[in-house]
Amino acid sequence: MKTKILMCLKQQKGYLSGEELSKQLGVSRTAVWKAIRRLREDGYTIEAVRNRGYRLADSGDVYSEAELKSILHTKKAGQRLFFFDKVDSTNNKAKQLAEAGEPDGTLVVAETQCAGKGRRGRQWLSPKGTGIWMSLVLRPEITPGQAAMLTLVAALAVSEGIAVATGLKTGIKWPNDIVMNGKKLCGILTEMNTEMGDINYVVVGIGINVNTQDFPDDIKSTATSLALEGKQPVKRSRLIHTILQAWEQYYAVYLQTADLTGLMQEYNDRLVNCNRQVTVLKPEGSYAGISYGIDRLGRLLVEKGDKTVEVVMSGEVSVRGIYGYV
Amino acid sequence: MKTKILMCLKQQKGYLSGEELSKQLGVSRTAVWKAIRRLREDGYTIEAVRNRGYRLADSGDVYSEAELKSILHTKKAGQRLFFFDKVDSTNNKAKQLAEAGEPDGTLVVAETQCAGKGRRGRQWLSPKGTGIWMSLVLRPEITPGQAAMLTLVAALAVSEGIAVATGLKTGIKWPNDIVMNGKKLCGILTEMNTEMGDINYVVVGIGINVNTQDFPDDIKSTATSLALEGKQPVKRSRLIHTILQAWEQYYAVYLQTADLTGLMQEYNDRLVNCNRQVTVLKPEGSYAGISYGIDRLGRLLVEKGDKTVEVVMSGEVSVRGIYGYV
Repeated sequence: MKTKILMCLKQQKGYLSGEELSKQLGVSRTAVWKAIRRLREDGYTIEAVRNRGYRLADSGDVYSEAELKSILHTKKAGQRLFFFDKVDSTNNKAKQLAEAGEPDGTLVVAETQCAGKGRRGRQWLSPKGTGIWMSLVLRPEITPGQAAMLTLVAALAVSEGIAVATGLKTGIKWPNDIVMNGKKLCGILTEMNTEMGDINYVVVGIGINVNTQDFPDDIKSTATSLALEGKQPVKRSRLIHTILQAWEQYYAVYLQTADLTGLMQEYNDRLVNCNRQVTVLKPEGSYAGISYGIDRLGRLLVEKGDKTVEVVMSGEVSVRGIYGYV
Repeated sequence: MKTKILMCLKQQKGYLSGEELSKQLGVSRTAVWKAIRRLREDGYTIEAVRNRGYRLADSGDVYSEAELKSILHTKKAGQRLFFFDKVDSTNNKAKQLAEAGEPDGTLVVAETQCAGKGRRGRQWLSPKGTGIWMSLVLRPEITPGQAAMLTLVAALAVSEGIAVATGLKTGIKWPNDIVMNGKKLCGILTEMNTEMGDINYVVVGIGINVNTQDFPDDIKSTATSLALEGKQPVKRSRLIHTILQAWEQYYAVYLQTADLTGLMQEYNDRLVNCNRQVTVLKPEGSYAGISYGIDRLGRLLVEKGDKTVEVVMSGEVSVRGIYGYV
C-alpha cells in the first residue's frame, strides 16, 4: 500500500486528494492516511493542504524498499528486491537467497554492511547513509569461463549509471574499479557458484561511495565519493535505477556473444589505464609496459619494452599505473 | 576424552585397566568410567572384567565423531571434522563452513540428510544408518577450469576406497557415478565458489549407498548398495577412512600437473563405458558412437560412425550406454 500511494503521489504533478487516492486504490481513507504517515516516517516530505490533498515534496535521499520499488523501471534487475537495514555483506545475503532459489535479477540492497567484503578477503567500509552496497543475483546460461567477464560489464554499467544520474565522468581501472582523479569511487566483487561445471548462480556485488564526506586516514589518499567529486549530494535510489538500466542494456549486448565483442570499444574509452605505462605485478616478477586496453575476453593487452604484447588475465596479476581521468 | 580412551582401547590387544587408562591420560578413574559409559551409549561393546580392565569388542558400524577421529589416519582430509546427526545437505553445510573460513580438507559427515542434493536439482535419498553422506572442503591453488576435473579424481578415490575396505570391484560411469552390475552405488556432486576468477573453495559431496537393504520402487532397478552387492554389512567409518586415504594419494598426483595425466590410465581401467557403444545426448540431437575413455582433461572421447572422434565435455551432455562391470 505504501509503495502504491508513493507511486500515485510521484505521478501526480499537483495535489492529490485523500478521497481520490482511496478511490484509485480501493481502500479506506484511514488506510490512505496511515500509509501517508508511514511514508513521512521513512523521510518523505508530504505536504497536506485542506480541500486540495497531498503533494510529495522533493524526497531527498530517501532510501527504502518502497522508494526503490517506485523508482526501478527495469525489466528484470531489481524487480525482485530485498532491502535490509543491516547485513554482514550483501554478497553473503545474495548467496543465501540464491541458494534458497531466488531468481535471476534478484537484488539485495543494504543501508549498512557490518562485514562488507573487498577483494582477497579485504574489508570494505560500508557506513550507514552514505553509500550504495548492493548485490545482484544472476543465472546466465553461459560457461563459468565466460561469466568471468561479467565483472567488466558491471563496471561499465556503474560508470554509465553514474554519468546519467550525476553528469560525472568516471573512469574504469582495469579490471573493475571505478575511479575519479586517481581515487577509487566504487569496487565490484563477483562471486560464482558452479555445480558440476555449470553455473548455478553469479553474485555481482557493487559498493559505491556516494555521499561520504570523510574517509578514515588510511584510505583518505586513495578513496573518494560522488558527493566529494561533484560537490553535491546524490540520491542513491535514483543512482541504483540508472545503474540497473545501464546494466540491462550492456548485459543484453554481452549475452549476444557471451563475450565483450560489442562492449570493448566503450570499455576501453572509459579505461584510465589505456595507452599508458603500467606495471604488471606477477608472482614471478613484475615488468613495465604500455597498456592497449582489453581484448574481447576482457584481458589487458600490455606491450613490453621488446615490443612483444602480453595478454594479462584478471586474477593473475595486479596492474599499477599512473592514472587520472582527464 | 572419549576419543582418547577409544584410541587407547583400540591400540590395546588385550585388557586395559581403568588405573592404567587414568594414568596414561592424566585423569581421574571417575572420568575414565564416565567416558566408557558414553562410548557404550554410542554403540561400542566394551567388556569389563574385574582385575583385568576394559576391552573393546568388535564395534560394528559405530558411526560417530569419536569413531571417525580414532580411525582417520589421513594427512589433511577429514582432520578437521564436523559430524552431524541431521543436516539439510552436507554440501550446503560444507559451503556454510567454507564461507565461515574453515580450511582445506575440512570434512562434513551426516547420519542423515533431509534435503540431499543430486545433479540438476534432483533429490538424493539419504536415510539414517545406511549410507555415507559427506562433503569435503578444498581450497586448491589451481584455476576454476582445472578444478572441474576434481570430480573425476573423487570418483577414482571412492572406487579405490571401496575396493580396499570391502574387496568389491566397482566401475565408474563417466564422469563420476560409481556402479556395480549396472546399478548406481554412489553419486558425487561438486560445487565451486569463485571470487573474481580465483577459486575460493570447492565442495566435493559424496553419497554412497552402504548398508541399504531396500530402495523405493522408483529407483529399485537403478540403485544398489555395497551390502546388497557384497552380501554383508560394511563399516562406514572404515570406508570413509579408506576413501580419504585413496583421495589423498590421487589428489597429490592430480595437483602435480593440475590435470589427469597421471590418473587417466587408472580411470579408464575402471570406466564401465570404455570401448563400448554409447549414446551422446546433446541438446541439439543425440548420436551413437564408441567411447574410448577420457583424455587428460577428463573429456570423453567418442568415435562416431564416420570414424571422426568427438571430444565430449561433462555438463554439456548425458551419456547413455549398455554397461556392466565384468
